[in-house]
Parts: sequence; structure tokens; C-alpha cells
Amino acid sequence: MVNRLKEDLIRTSAMGRVSNRPVASYGQLDSKAGVSRPEGSLANKVLRDFTVKCMQTAGLSVRIDRVGNIFGRKDGSMNREKAVMVGSHLDSVINGGHLDGALGVFAGIEAVRRLCDEDFQNQRPIEVVAFTGEEGSAFMVGAMLGSAFLVGKMSADEALSTRNTHGRTLQEVLTENGYQGDFEYCSDDIDAFMELHIEQGPALDTENIPVGIVEHISGITWLKSIITGVGRHAGTTPMHLRQDALVVAADAVRFINRRALEMAQSQISPIVGTTGYLSVYPNNMNVIPAMVKLGFDIRSTSLKSMQCLTDETISFLNGLTQEKGLDVRMESSDTQAPVKLSNAIVRTIEKAAVRTGVRFKRMTSGAGHDTQNMASIAKTGMIFVPSVKGISHSPMEWTEWDDIEKGVSVLTGALKDLSACK
Amino acid sequence: MVNRLKEDLIRTSAMGRVSNRPVASYGQLDSKAGVSRPEGSLANKVLRDFTVKCMQTAGLSVRIDRVGNIFGRKDGSMNREKAVMVGSHLDSVINGGHLDGALGVFAGIEAVRRLCDEDFQNQRPIEVVAFTGEEGSAFMVGAMLGSAFLVGKMSADEALSTRNTHGRTLQEVLTENGYQGDFEYCSDDIDAFMELHIEQGPALDTENIPVGIVEHISGITWLKSIITGVGRHAGTTPMHLRQDALVVAADAVRFINRRALEMAQSQISPIVGTTGYLSVYPNNMNVIPAMVKLGFDIRSTSLKSMQCLTDETISFLNGLTQEKGLDVRMESSDTQAPVKLSNAIVRTIEKAAVRTGVRFKRMTSGAGHDTQNMASIAKTGMIFVPSVKGISHSPMEWTEWDDIEKGVSVLTGALKDLSACK
Repeated sequence: MVNRLKEDLIRTSAMGRVSNRPVASYGQLDSKAGVSRPEGSLANKVLRDFTVKCMQTAGLSVRIDRVGNIFGRKDGSMNREKAVMVGSHLDSVINGGHLDGALGVFAGIEAVRRLCDEDFQNQRPIEVVAFTGEEGSAFMVGAMLGSAFLVGKMSADEALSTRNTHGRTLQEVLTENGYQGDFEYCSDDIDAFMELHIEQGPALDTENIPVGIVEHISGITWLKSIITGVGRHAGTTPMHLRQDALVVAADAVRFINRRALEMAQSQISPIVGTTGYLSVYPNNMNVIPAMVKLGFDIRSTSLKSMQCLTDETISFLNGLTQEKGLDVRMESSDTQAPVKLSNAIVRTIEKAAVRTGVRFKRMTSGAGHDTQNMASIAKTGMIFVPSVKGISHSPMEWTEWDDIEKGVSVLTGALKDLSACK
Repeated sequence: MVNRLKEDLIRTSAMGRVSNRPVASYGQLDSKAGVSRPEGSLANKVLRDFTVKCMQTAGLSVRIDRVGNIFGRKDGSMNREKAVMVGSHLDSVINGGHLDGALGVFAGIEAVRRLCDEDFQNQRPIEVVAFTGEEGSAFMVGAMLGSAFLVGKMSADEALSTRNTHGRTLQEVLTENGYQGDFEYCSDDIDAFMELHIEQGPALDTENIPVGIVEHISGITWLKSIITGVGRHAGTTPMHLRQDALVVAADAVRFINRRALEMAQSQISPIVGTTGYLSVYPNNMNVIPAMVKLGFDIRSTSLKSMQCLTDETISFLNGLTQEKGLDVRMESSDTQAPVKLSNAIVRTIEKAAVRTGVRFKRMTSGAGHDTQNMASIAKTGMIFVPSVKGISHSPMEWTEWDDIEKGVSVLTGALKDLSACK
């Protein structure tokens, strides 16, 4: 049984492979291969075709909706009841790992195969879903596009008219790869949704725990600022007569790092604050920096904490630039609020873990997932498996086979429970 | 008399003009014009031709050496004595100011014209020089190339084989613009050298003093470092598990700024320390910075102070990266040692300033000049005129006409004294 999923992963890891890194292995898969499978790529179509074939072989009936989401249905004995849905996405970032997304789809298919092996009769219909364009690596505007469409946050017209980095619309891409369907999934028909995914952070790997049960998905604020000083000759301008934009920016980088660390240590809700982007102008060795552009990424499960760190950072920068005679312009992005997942699903997954004898911990997802869209229309839960060294979006992304196997066992157990009408 | 030089400056300011900024005026010159006159440009040839014509009209006999340096000679009554030389360079940075370099050449020509107007008979021969390629904006390898060749720091082959940003050698450029001569200036034949130049810093403008007499030219060290941390997902990596290369880099930016300020305030020798260059990789909002490249510019008139700040910065970075578990690689450029100019020339210029009733101050040059090469073969001095707001290498570069006039009067007076055999 186990080998079926391993073989699927070995097959799919070759799709869109961009490099070989001979580091680890799942049997025949003896490399950590970077993969590129953005929507519209050949590798993405090949993976879609393989997914449909696997769904059909597993006895699922396949339907495609207008934005290319793929649904594989196993009818239930009480087929008019709302469905329980499992799945994730097939697209990847450029030169990312082969598990981010695809693992959750094939874990869903494998769970159904195991139920069939046991002649388990589900009451509710089961749907395995492969969402379109979660990463937004091709269609920048539309990260988590497929699930946003399913739950009604985005219209079909809006989704289909988004353009990728080559200027092609999703409509054009789906017409070409044969995945623009006409099925319309009614979001009222979904009772519960579960997604198995790699953690993408170091918590499980550090603590050597094979399964994480997600309670919260962090919210996110992107804060952008431009600090303008005076660009002068680095050799001729005395230290006390400078308006150095980089020195002020350095203070801001230190501030958000220090405050996020303090808040994370002192509060119940985890918080992170990162300066991921910093560009200096003119960036010449012998010119005092005239302008610095900064990008801060702030995430927490507490909207209040996010707002607090955002406000503190803005007010720190305003105060400092005023004191030093520089100019600062702030631009705050729309904030995505944190999402709390369903207590009922968390408990169902926990029970399944206990039954299968798998160690687990409750945790938070710092990254965004389709699950957070699904939470607006159904009971939702997530199962994490460890990312070695917490690395993701990288050819070095890896999860040990034993951990994947444990995650799939827990998913199968929870799927059994949820497919009963209670 | 005054208007001759003003007319020269109005004429030359149009050569290589790249933009108009209607801010200030010298009579007909009613704009602050950015100019681009790198070696090999048409504007550079036009300016060279005009310079030669002005030299000849002033009664100077013109000779060109192998790297394109232009010498205009006024014979002396004791013509076998060593010469007194005045001048600067004609090339400019891209979109720089029209005075940086050219002013010193035309001030030299004007000084000679004034001596002729007075029927002054110089004993030593006087040479007005226009050096090739001081800025290094075209021939990157060869900043201060012309004077380096004259004093024997660079061979003709080395100079002529340097390539500009278009891949052309100086030899090709000089063949094309007609300025590869065969004159060989014997550096033993120079007794004294003086250069009039814009200050490029804010000291004279801030204190409202028209003339600076340079005692020292700062040395310079360029220190480059690469800090390598671990690039991880900004949302999923807890604050206490990060190796954020930018946070460490920000500490280094703060450190060199603070220490340079402290040293400048507490010591006799001025010092400046700047992080002019900082680049972040991958520089994505949602990825913890994996690598930061830093470039520090350290200058002082005291080699010991430069070495001290360089050592402190290296040891700060080594300590901090070790403490935080990051990697740092340092690369120190060749240090250009500070240069002390001739006491005798400083006093000669001071006397000339006192005679002409011009206020002055002794000062340091933070920027590099041909003078520092000349100091290795002759008594040398520099006269600075104020840069409005300390701005240079910019279309906003400006010096008020009255200040230029005062600088040229002092230069003329000093040239008189130095051209007598004492």
C-alpha cells in the first residue's frame, strides 16, 4: 500500500525538474530535485494529466471547474449529504520543491485508495481536490486563486482574466492545456475540508514530531516604506552633517527584529517580523545612501499583535526620520486577517493520530494555504508533516518518507470519521 | 579680465550638457547643467580642442604626451630651472557638474593670462596641465590615470591598454580623438604643482569662506564583506531560530557610522566611515535574507585611524556573525595612504591670500585628486573653492562666481611667487 504513494511521488518529482541534488532518497528517487510547475507550464499540464489518471484509477469520477480546479469524487452511501473534501494544489514556485502542494493531492488520493482497500463505505461523498494557482508564481495577482474562486471570493471573470508573467491570461492557459471545465461546484455542498501539507517551517523537525495539527493560520501585513536622505560624497561630508538613509533604515531593520522577538517571547500568540526587502540608491561605495526602500513582512495569529507591531514600526520610523531630518513615506498593504481552524476537525485529527499511534502537536501555520479560503465556507483542518531544517520553496525542500507515511495514516483515519454523517 | 574666465566657463559648460536646471547663473550661463565628458566621448574631444586653442591664444606652447595629457608651456627667463605646474583634469563623471576638473585647467590658463597682462616675467617655466582620465568614469581601472603615468606609477602600456565600459582601449580612444602625442615629460623637471578645484564637500559653504588651502588629502580603504545566513520562509520561521543576514548587516551599518562619528569627534584627524553599498539576496518580502553584500568606505588623513576603524569593523563583524551562527567573508581593498601636501606651498598660497585680501582656511580633502600623485615627485598644494551645499558629481554642483574669482586671484598670486627661483 505504502509503495503506491511513494511511486506517485517518484513519478511526479521528475515533472518540471530543474536540477539534481544527490542528497537524500525515497528508494528510486535519489535526488532532491528542484521543480518548476507554474500554471501554464508543460510540467503543470503533465502533472494535471497524471493526477486525473490516478484519480480515475482510484475509482474517483473527475470533474473540472471553470478555473481549472480538479475534483475527484467517491460517492457516499448517503450521497445527498454534504461532502468531505481533501486536497491541496499542484502548482509550484519556480525552482521549488516537489512536495509543496502535490503531496496533499496525492495523499488525498492515497487515503481514498486505502479506504477502498478496506472496503470502507463512506456515508458522505468524498472529494479529492487539486486547486489551481495557489502559489501565485505565474499569476501574481491570484495567489490561492482556485480556492478563492471556489468559495466565491473571486469571480470566474476576475480569475480567468488575470495575466501571468508572460502576459497570458489564465483563460488562454486553460484553453491550451485542456483544463477549462464547465463544472460548477456549489460551495454549500461542502461539510468539511482537510489539507495535508509540508510544514515549511522548522518546528516539527526541531522537536522530532512527525505530525502537526494546525489550529491557526497566521494573518499577514506587508508594510513598505521609502526613506529619503541626502546623497553626498562619502569622502567629503563630515559625519555630523549627514542625512544617511541607510543608517536610519538599519535602525528600522534592528527595531522590527528586536520588537518581534520580544513580543514572541512575552505573548501567547506567536508573531514574526521580517525585513525581507531592502534596496539602496545609488548603492555606490563612495556615495552616502540617498534613498532606501524597505519591505516588512509581519505575521501573527493575533490581528491585534500584527496591528501593534505595524503601528510601532511606523511610529519608530516617523520619529527617527523626523529627528534626523530625513523624509519617510509609508505604504501599508491590505492586511490578511488570521484564520482560526475548526475545533471539531482538530479533535477529529487528534483522535485519528492517537488511534494510529502517531505523535503529534497542535501548531500554527505561518504560511498561507488554500485552507484559509476554505475556512470561510466549511469546517477545516490541516495536517503538517516536517520539513527537514524547515526549508521550503527551495530545491533543498525535503520530508522523510516515514513522516509522510504517518501523515497519510492520520489523514486516512480522520477522513473515515468525517465521512460518517454525525 | 574676469570676464575671460567666465566666458570660458560658459562655453565649456555647454560641452557634454545632459540636462538643464534653471537655478542659478553666471551671466549668460543661466542653468545648472549636468555634463558627461568621459574620456572617449565627443564632448571630451571638443573640450580638449577648446582647451588647446585657449592655451595657444594665451601664448602657451602646447605639447601632448603618450596618454593624452596636455601641457601648455610659458617659458621662463631661467628656462633650465624646474617648472612650476598648475592644472587639473578635463574629464567628468557621467551627468556630473561642469566645474569638477575643468575649472582647475581654465583657472591655470587665466592665471597665465593675468601674468601676461601685467608683463610679469617668470623665472621658472610655467606649465598648465590638463590630465587625462582623472575620474575613472570611462576607464574604470585608471582613476587619476594621467597623473599616475606622469609620475611613473603607471607605465604607458598599462595606461594605454586599459579598456573603457564600451570595451575600447585608451590607445584606441586617443588615436581616434587625435590626442596621442609623443612628448615625454620628465617628472624630474617639476619643482612645484598647484591644483585649484571645487571642494566637493560642505565645509567652506557652511562657514562662508571663499578659499580653502589643502594641507592633507585623505587616504581611503574600501572594505567589502559578504554575510551569509540562512534564507527561510519569513512566515514559518520563529524569531529565535533565524540566521538573518540583514539583521547582522544592519548592526554593521550602525557600528561603522557610530564609531566614525565618535572618532571624528574625539580625535584631531578627521575620519569618515560610510556603508555606501548594501545588496540583499534574495530580496523577497517573504524570505528571510540569506545573504548580504556590504561595501564600506573609510577615509582619514591618519593612516592609523583608518586602520583602526577598519580593524574594529572587521572584528565587530567577525564577533557578531560568530555569536549568531552566520558566516562572514571579508575582502579588503588596497589602501591608498593619506597624503600630506607641502608646507612651503601651503604658506605660499596663504601669503597670496593675505595679499589679495581673501579669507581662507586650512583644510583637508576627503576626495582624491591628481595632486596626490603629483605629491610623490614635487612640492604640491591645492586651492579649494566652495561647493554650494557641498554637492558634487551631480548636475546640482555649483560654485558662485565671486568665489571662483577669489580662488583664481589667490592662484595667480601663488604662481607668481613660485615661478621665481628661490
